[in-house]
Amino acid sequence: MSPDFDVLTIGNAIVDILSPAEEDMLVRLGVTKSMMRLIDAEEAERIYDMMGPAVEASGGSAANTAAGVASFGGRAAYIGKVAMDAFGDVFSHDIRSQGVHFETRPLFDGAPTARCMILITPDSERTMNTYLGACHHLTVDDIEEKTVAAARYTYLEGFLWDPPEAKKAFRKAADIAHAHGRLASITLSDSFCVDRFRAEFLDLMRSGTVDLVFANKEEAKALYETHDLETAVACLRRDCKAAAVTLGGDGALAFDGDELVSAPASEVEELVDMTGAGDQFAAGFLYARSRDLTLAEATRLGCLAGGECVGHIGPRPAVSLSQLARDVGVKLPVGEQWAEALPKI
Amino acid sequence: MSPDFDVLTIGNAIVDILSPAEEDMLVRLGVTKSMMRLIDAEEAERIYDMMGPAVEASGGSAANTAAGVASFGGRAAYIGKVAMDAFGDVFSHDIRSQGVHFETRPLFDGAPTARCMILITPDSERTMNTYLGACHHLTVDDIEEKTVAAARYTYLEGFLWDPPEAKKAFRKAADIAHAHGRLASITLSDSFCVDRFRAEFLDLMRSGTVDLVFANKEEAKALYETHDLETAVACLRRDCKAAAVTLGGDGALAFDGDELVSAPASEVEELVDMTGAGDQFAAGFLYARSRDLTLAEATRLGCLAGGECVGHIGPRPAVSLSQLARDVGVKLPVGEQWAEALPKI
Repeated sequence: MSPDFDVLTIGNAIVDILSPAEEDMLVRLGVTKSMMRLIDAEEAERIYDMMGPAVEASGGSAANTAAGVASFGGRAAYIGKVAMDAFGDVFSHDIRSQGVHFETRPLFDGAPTARCMILITPDSERTMNTYLGACHHLTVDDIEEKTVAAARYTYLEGFLWDPPEAKKAFRKAADIAHAHGRLASITLSDSFCVDRFRAEFLDLMRSGTVDLVFANKEEAKALYETHDLETAVACLRRDCKAAAVTLGGDGALAFDGDELVSAPASEVEELVDMTGAGDQFAAGFLYARSRDLTLAEATRLGCLAGGECVGHIGPRPAVSLSQLARDVGVKLPVGEQWAEALPKI
Repeated sequence: MSPDFDVLTIGNAIVDILSPAEEDMLVRLGVTKSMMRLIDAEEAERIYDMMGPAVEASGGSAANTAAGVASFGGRAAYIGKVAMDAFGDVFSHDIRSQGVHFETRPLFDGAPTARCMILITPDSERTMNTYLGACHHLTVDDIEEKTVAAARYTYLEGFLWDPPEAKKAFRKAADIAHAHGRLASITLSDSFCVDRFRAEFLDLMRSGTVDLVFANKEEAKALYETHDLETAVACLRRDCKAAAVTLGGDGALAFDGDELVSAPASEVEELVDMTGAGDQFAAGFLYARSRDLTLAEATRLGCLAGGECVGHIGPRPAVSLSQLARDVGVKLPVGEQWAEALPKI
């Protein structure tokens, strides 16, 4: 029997609040450009007061990836915790209406839905300030065995290591996946996140708890505390069976066992907002692998989805990725197609 | 003493939920394209369930205009009613951080902040479904004499005729404005809105309750139940001292007493979303008139702001309108400049 889902992703369920910002605002806030930092409710209020007019859009790294998989026509599921509030409604609506299976029970009483205040500087970089709120209440009880068992790939975000309970949920999900002969994958998420959890991430890889690792070049270098990308990739090849490393304007490389491939970056008319580019790379890659496309094809689809994402504001596809793939001559696998109607924002 | 505000706008305080939609969705919903219709909480839920993934951005016609005035560097104030909820926070944040004075007391207990579900069809037209919620609780008590007295122009949206109490607030504001030698203006808002309140709108004009009228060509024709624009404009000239009529791709015309001018539409690279184009036309026009620019200059600035608005998703300026005006060679009046830092979304 083929699995019910191509990809299940698990992560922090977050609504993004996106606003342009000048470089000096980062200085005034005392934040480092391009990083994700965690903030408490009070700091969230302080930053919001300093931000300019914003727009809101559903985000959350792994949720963005699930949306991307669905946009390719893949069968996607998502697990993450929102609260019963307006932002929770927005998050739930957006992911479900993209065709993603999302049934995690919302938090009834307690912290509000998580939000991430994203400052977009004129160089299109995004600096993220995340108040995790309800995400702290994702627990092992939210990991349903049947959903994990039904997914060819389970994909977990490294950010899940921040809320203490979610880390246990992460391990449970990986265990279930393997018990059912499925594959578990992880994104390292952010180089500060790697700094916080280096030993644990390396252990996940070396112990075989994860079968496939996603990283950008900064995260890969941070993991091995090296300034040299080649060294980092060599270490990755030693520590895990398969990985994909995104290289920004230089595209991406990926390996699976002895096979090593690379793909150039997609041509992008205008670099507008880098938010979500890595998430969408993972979407293309995972979708392709779950449908038995080659490693090279998967890397190419990843670059295609990542390139689409940086051309507009917001972390999820603004066009149908399956249509985009057809437009550039990629033959997608035939299969049950979900959610062909897609957002163009 | 010069007034503290160039423009005070009063309207329904709304957060927009924007999503692309195919033509057939309008048919399934039974809605007429390009119109604004009012819906109740139950219908709001039904439509949201049918909508695709969306983004959220502050809206509300008159609020968009206030944001546009501030973006030109004008001193703007706004009166409108939100609730104490997440969408209310979003609305308040966005308008204040644009530099608009907004101190209307929020509704503590009752209906939620208003929302407008906007379906954007591939032809860039927007079809609006508005749940007014807290807007029903805007009353005469929210109209502070000192704020109205301090504004050179008070601008009222025709949509205020829908919530019954707001209509009284509208009249009170116009009366205060005139008592202090200021000017009152109105936008007819929507041709269905004109159908609902034709007699009252004509009375406002003929009685001199409003000194300046904004309409698009459909609204002008609807007001006089004619298919002929020239007839409608001739009637407008008979019934009110001054008016500005937007003509879509043909720009706009305006008159003030015997003077009649027109301006071509701004060149627009790509028509993305018509939402807010009329609101931004009013912003440019009112800002110019409040700073004693000529009628022709005001019409040109209106077209400039309207043209900027249709080039991106969302009803408020995505760039600094004062910068845009300088870029195209318009010399803006010198004066206190508010809110030079502006959103680029």
